[in-house]
Amino acid sequence: MRTLLLAASAALALTLPLAAQETTKPTALAPSEIVAAAPKADWVAIPAEDLLVMTLAPDADGKPRVVVIQLLPAPFSQGWVHNIRLFARAKWYDGISVNRVQDNYVTQWGDPNYDNPEAKGKPKPLPEGLKVMGEAEYITRASRETVPSVWTEAGKFPFDEAITPFRSVRAGTVPSRFADPYTSMAGFAGGFPVGLAIEGTMAKRAVPTGPDIAWPTHCYGMVGVGRNYSPDTGSGAELYTVIGHAPRHLDRNIALVGRVIEGMEHLSSLPRGSGALGFYTAAEANKRTPILTVRVASDLPLAAQPKFEYLSTESGTFATYAEAIANRRDPFFITPAGGADICNIKVPVRRLADAK
Amino acid sequence: MRTLLLAASAALALTLPLAAQETTKPTALAPSEIVAAAPKADWVAIPAEDLLVMTLAPDADGKPRVVVIQLLPAPFSQGWVHNIRLFARAKWYDGISVNRVQDNYVTQWGDPNYDNPEAKGKPKPLPEGLKVMGEAEYITRASRETVPSVWTEAGKFPFDEAITPFRSVRAGTVPSRFADPYTSMAGFAGGFPVGLAIEGTMAKRAVPTGPDIAWPTHCYGMVGVGRNYSPDTGSGAELYTVIGHAPRHLDRNIALVGRVIEGMEHLSSLPRGSGALGFYTAAEANKRTPILTVRVASDLPLAAQPKFEYLSTESGTFATYAEAIANRRDPFFITPAGGADICNIKVPVRRLADAK
Repeated sequence: MRTLLLAASAALALTLPLAAQETTKPTALAPSEIVAAAPKADWVAIPAEDLLVMTLAPDADGKPRVVVIQLLPAPFSQGWVHNIRLFARAKWYDGISVNRVQDNYVTQWGDPNYDNPEAKGKPKPLPEGLKVMGEAEYITRASRETVPSVWTEAGKFPFDEAITPFRSVRAGTVPSRFADPYTSMAGFAGGFPVGLAIEGTMAKRAVPTGPDIAWPTHCYGMVGVGRNYSPDTGSGAELYTVIGHAPRHLDRNIALVGRVIEGMEHLSSLPRGSGALGFYTAAEANKRTPILTVRVASDLPLAAQPKFEYLSTESGTFATYAEAIANRRDPFFITPAGGADICNIKVPVRRLADAK
Repeated sequence: MRTLLLAASAALALTLPLAAQETTKPTALAPSEIVAAAPKADWVAIPAEDLLVMTLAPDADGKPRVVVIQLLPAPFSQGWVHNIRLFARAKWYDGISVNRVQDNYVTQWGDPNYDNPEAKGKPKPLPEGLKVMGEAEYITRASRETVPSVWTEAGKFPFDEAITPFRSVRAGTVPSRFADPYTSMAGFAGGFPVGLAIEGTMAKRAVPTGPDIAWPTHCYGMVGVGRNYSPDTGSGAELYTVIGHAPRHLDRNIALVGRVIEGMEHLSSLPRGSGALGFYTAAEANKRTPILTVRVASDLPLAAQPKFEYLSTESGTFATYAEAIANRRDPFFITPAGGADICNIKVPVRRLADAK
């Protein structure tokens, strides 16, 4: 009973639903084993320009705490990502702190003197050259050009059923597989989880015939931009990451800019703040974790640049991996779910050892 | 930009989808405000026999750490809940520890010497009188008698659309509202989130016409029973709680026994273990948090018994609350989602102040 979840390799022979046989390669391997066996060609290098290296003050034992964030790629990156590189290059983030940790929600960092009635210092002036974005930029046009995988012909795209889950219902097959409570369609593009919809249909939730707009989704570890009331959309000076169940109601209401790909535990295990919304109170000032530096990896000396790859979300391996997550056949499981939440299909990311 | 999420009270006048108008009472109040205004009659007292009070060793600052767990009520409680009361009354849990903290997954506690090759001590002998459960007990028969709310006529049950999301699709209304990736239907019963299905249909995922079996779902803070390989289902000596995105693939594969209703932050913010599956290694033995005592609240002196209530999941207030979560109209939100994940509709629980 020591083991809650094992990744063992014994093969189980199960009869699979026809739909799964047609669209994926069913396997009794655990998802982690499928990833371990992925050919090199299925891995995509993350550009150093898209990596942020955030160094927190060492922990109570004096151990270093480094967090690596992957910034969203095109077409999902918007002006906020531009701003974040600008803040980092101006060294504006150096010396800020983690100011808010709300259980089952977010850890948030920024200038501890900004908009804080209990602050003793003055807010930092913002650097010049920041872009101002509107709410329209929370979404992206999803066309064959901007989100090609969505438009791949049926049978090739790993989530052909996810993309049209309700058409599948009508055909009488796999009704709720990859159904999503927050949008008509959900899938993956460019290594990130995305919601998809025909613009203008979300209010009525009409049955869609294909995607028109896309947006990244608030899964665990995703990084977003704190803001005040609309039409403010935030500059990027204040950032947060999700440390609980995916708050998907924030999708299309706040800008996402990337995700934590290493060191998440340094942000998720911090003491929760006892103030409103999890902010640390004045009496808890000593709990604010100092952020020493934030650097764009491409600005570091070549030997110090961390190197990461993600498993292509357009690859056959990813399709097999996602199918295995939705239908666990490795020995610990007695009842496969037959579906999966998009936030439980974590895009595999690995650090290249030779760059350590 | 200090504020990521506000619970403000300004009223917004929005036109609502017809379906929402018919089945709930749409409001511009924030979900927290709806709960605050609930009439006393909508709150259900949790029996002291269903409350476990778990006292951890004080934190590094010497502050007490108390966790309160609500055990599952009938018809979802099975022999594991019986065993847990038996372990507590035998004081068997006193002196065990938190042995595993895996980021975005679980915190697990039990005998640190059980099944641990690095242990220096011997495992504790188990108390007598433990029940042995089979895998059939992961599910419950859902009939009018055992899960009455599921069978309430349409329009009264808060999740009438959730219960038949795919029938709604066919009628052309609210297609994916409360759709669930893990089962045909999801809803609430007796204060807990539950999955529902017709037995035998899960493998094929056929379109359901009504529920037949029900089971509690692995949302954030739910408490379950660690086990080894099937047919072992665990005794209750080893327990875990979910500290990340809901691992719903564990539903119907592991026994759930309740949920943390107070002090969750004491389990979710612990340092992650660096061993396999988040277990603490021998070198990290000092990170194991000692559990001093675990008591059934009804065994405490009356004045020391904590008193809690939950918002009836069969009440009109709960229906309004759930609808508001799915369609946020409070001022921070510019784009309501039009749906919600069952694990984001947290059943409100409150401690009665006079019992503090």
